[in-house]
Amino acid sequence: MKTVRDLGEFGLIRHLAKRIPRAGDDCAVLPGGGLLTCDPVIEGIHFLPETPPRAVGWKAMARNLSDIAAMGGTPRYAVVSLGLRPTTTVRWVCELYAGMRAVAVQFGCEIVGGDTAHVRHEQFVVVTLLGQADRPVLRSGAKPGDVVFVTGPLGGSFASGKHLRFTPRITEARWLVQHCRPHAMMDVSDGLASDLQRLSEASRVGFNIVSCKIPIAPGVAAARRAAGSSSFRRFTEAPLHHALTDGEDFELLFTVSPRRAKLARQRFYEIGRVIPQPVVLLDGVPLTAKGYDHFAQRR
Amino acid sequence: MKTVRDLGEFGLIRHLAKRIPRAGDDCAVLPGGGLLTCDPVIEGIHFLPETPPRAVGWKAMARNLSDIAAMGGTPRYAVVSLGLRPTTTVRWVCELYAGMRAVAVQFGCEIVGGDTAHVRHEQFVVVTLLGQADRPVLRSGAKPGDVVFVTGPLGGSFASGKHLRFTPRITEARWLVQHCRPHAMMDVSDGLASDLQRLSEASRVGFNIVSCKIPIAPGVAAARRAAGSSSFRRFTEAPLHHALTDGEDFELLFTVSPRRAKLARQRFYEIGRVIPQPVVLLDGVPLTAKGYDHFAQRR
Repeated sequence: MKTVRDLGEFGLIRHLAKRIPRAGDDCAVLPGGGLLTCDPVIEGIHFLPETPPRAVGWKAMARNLSDIAAMGGTPRYAVVSLGLRPTTTVRWVCELYAGMRAVAVQFGCEIVGGDTAHVRHEQFVVVTLLGQADRPVLRSGAKPGDVVFVTGPLGGSFASGKHLRFTPRITEARWLVQHCRPHAMMDVSDGLASDLQRLSEASRVGFNIVSCKIPIAPGVAAARRAAGSSSFRRFTEAPLHHALTDGEDFELLFTVSPRRAKLARQRFYEIGRVIPQPVVLLDGVPLTAKGYDHFAQRR
Repeated sequence: MKTVRDLGEFGLIRHLAKRIPRAGDDCAVLPGGGLLTCDPVIEGIHFLPETPPRAVGWKAMARNLSDIAAMGGTPRYAVVSLGLRPTTTVRWVCELYAGMRAVAVQFGCEIVGGDTAHVRHEQFVVVTLLGQADRPVLRSGAKPGDVVFVTGPLGGSFASGKHLRFTPRITEARWLVQHCRPHAMMDVSDGLASDLQRLSEASRVGFNIVSCKIPIAPGVAAARRAAGSSSFRRFTEAPLHHALTDGEDFELLFTVSPRRAKLARQRFYEIGRVIPQPVVLLDGVPLTAKGYDHFAQRR
């Protein structure tokens, strides 16, 4: 029988989404512009047993804030589900909450409740956010001719520790909605290559990305050291490979009409154009590099 | 350093709730009457590896619907976070969703999205519900002289399998809000003894419960067989002990003014009275039996 691993994370989500009409974006959009999203953070996957609990809390909350940002929305309320081992210290849990609260209050979001339960092995944190967007920006609105942007440099997020202390792009997203009216937007969580693919599917368009325009994060140097020379095998230009596939960048990927691109260029990184053919090209050649898949990796 | 186990589940929640002003009820109440709640369901605790996935889904959704019922609310939207092992079959996940959907649609609730991630050991399901209540019923409103009720018989829920197929008391709660205006309400999830204690703390009142009036579920017979004679040691009347402490009953516990009690008596089980002293009495004697605590047990 087919397993979750056979289908892969995106295959599974696609399979489930057939019966969930509102799924397919970073948040579910409710009537009246409500946004609802939840995202699990799991020990051994998203953080390590030795990760400072304040950083775990920050990440668990910031990931969800990033999903609200990706819709051009404002976060409002959060609830938190914790799976804790009985031997975990109360101090650890308090630090976790302090981390969640620290990033939530920055963006006017209030933690209003939650629940805890016992686990034997991996601890987990599931934050659910309720937000609001008057004009939610979906993944499905990219139009041929649009200019493609990212809000910041990509790659090396795990190696540099950025994945534990990134700032969700709430402020940038609201500025964008006000001034540039992006046609499509999502956050880069699984790697630019993979997320471009998903934006392409949702909008039924393609992209031509210019490799030398992709901003590469300083963390990529650390990632290359950590990987040794192995990453050279897969890609001629290893830093670019990291920027395309490392994931957990939590920058925004968006498209705007050429008319509004000038304003966006003053603040963000232009990386390419939207094309009518539903294919992702890098310098005119189909891009095959893949991002992070929860179930397909770790064979 | 103090661990989660030292503090116990309720101690931990009390500790955290100090900094979460809206916490302390079955759901967080948002301005405008919005209700937000989330509840984890974990393999090995709330279900077993061999539990049919449809039943796991039903339970994960129904527990949350029960929290909305406990506020006298109407459920609207759900998001789902899954922690899955890569070897889990796609069929298992689809059945899980079928179970969630089956109970959600009964009460007009729509699953609008979610996320999945990889776990190595225990799988989990976290459902978050957004609901609405025009006049939310809190835990804090019980008044001395009120009559205390439960919506159904208690005990033996694990042994009988009721915990996997119970009907959340949404319909009953809405009827109650319309006709009896309950002063305080919560769902019985950790056992009547423990939940009376929590209602007592929230309302700063006490209860005098009449033991022979507590309705005992048919499942208690199965629970006693499963427990052998061991439960006799702790309580002279073992069936009553089960009804007080087994937990996962998901019936509603509520108080109404004596004037409105007549109507409630036609449908539900009267079990005692609210008293001004902040103590839970059983037939006039302080009740010491305890319900389920996630962290304190399993030493």
